[in-house]
Amino acid sequence: MNNVVRIIGIDPGLRRCGWGVIETEGNRLRFIGCGTVTPPVAGALADRLAFLFAELTLLLERFSPDEAAVEETFVNAGARSALLLGQARGVALMTPAARGVPVAEYAANLVKKSVVGAGHAEKGQVGLMVKTLLPAADFKGADAADALAIAICHAHHRVAAQRLRAMA
Amino acid sequence: MNNVVRIIGIDPGLRRCGWGVIETEGNRLRFIGCGTVTPPVAGALADRLAFLFAELTLLLERFSPDEAAVEETFVNAGARSALLLGQARGVALMTPAARGVPVAEYAANLVKKSVVGAGHAEKGQVGLMVKTLLPAADFKGADAADALAIAICHAHHRVAAQRLRAMA
Repeated sequence: MNNVVRIIGIDPGLRRCGWGVIETEGNRLRFIGCGTVTPPVAGALADRLAFLFAELTLLLERFSPDEAAVEETFVNAGARSALLLGQARGVALMTPAARGVPVAEYAANLVKKSVVGAGHAEKGQVGLMVKTLLPAADFKGADAADALAIAICHAHHRVAAQRLRAMA
Repeated sequence: MNNVVRIIGIDPGLRRCGWGVIETEGNRLRFIGCGTVTPPVAGALADRLAFLFAELTLLLERFSPDEAAVEETFVNAGARSALLLGQARGVALMTPAARGVPVAEYAANLVKKSVVGAGHAEKGQVGLMVKTLLPAADFKGADAADALAIAICHAHHRVAAQRLRAMA
């Protein structure tokens, strides 16, 4: 049995969608790749979502992750913003699932706790800890760092989650 | 030049997603098909969205519409409901666009006005008027009737919208 599991973390957004790929083997983590998908700001919403779908599809083809993880969106904004973000998030959740890649969801607080040790971390703290856990990570923006943090969170919780599912 | 334009209207939803296909030629409308996609209620959100994507993809393959129309979601519920609906709506908007089918969006009030003549119609009124405009329509639920109403709205407004785009 191959114990290396490749995980893609996705931080969904319509203007900036962060992604990060890692491998986990036992308690070891390895950086594979990261970046940010930036759909065109102009144009019809449907076309911007189709751009996001096409780019995420290319990433899934390129990296062939075994599992995906997406942050549960924290909705403190109004219903209109929630609807907009929801549309991008729907595409981010659906794209791996449509290819048969299982998708886990994690609350933002749990993601921060997994990498920083506290549920309310500053953006910069997450980036610093991701860099400590994955020294090879070459992210430039907070979106890619957040996506890597989501992947790390999944690496830490996936075994427990699988056991819970098996017991259910 | 072929003046017959085939339109798919989509009324997005995670539990019930209505769809309706019509053809328009000049000021004539013709019913082609309609129905409701009902993703499984149980299971991971990502898998339910992937089900919606797969079913909409099959419909687009089966009917080969030239254009698609989706209702602009009316958000009067809380941010949490808006996020959930947004996720299904993102998939409904993206799926035709990813296949190169242009997607138009219409406000709910405009859709109702297009078929009933008033912006605040009862659900039953929309169904009755859709049945009058498309006597062959065999819809059973409100979701499919609403989707046909969205397609009719697009048939009425598409030429004006194209002229506006050409002038811009």
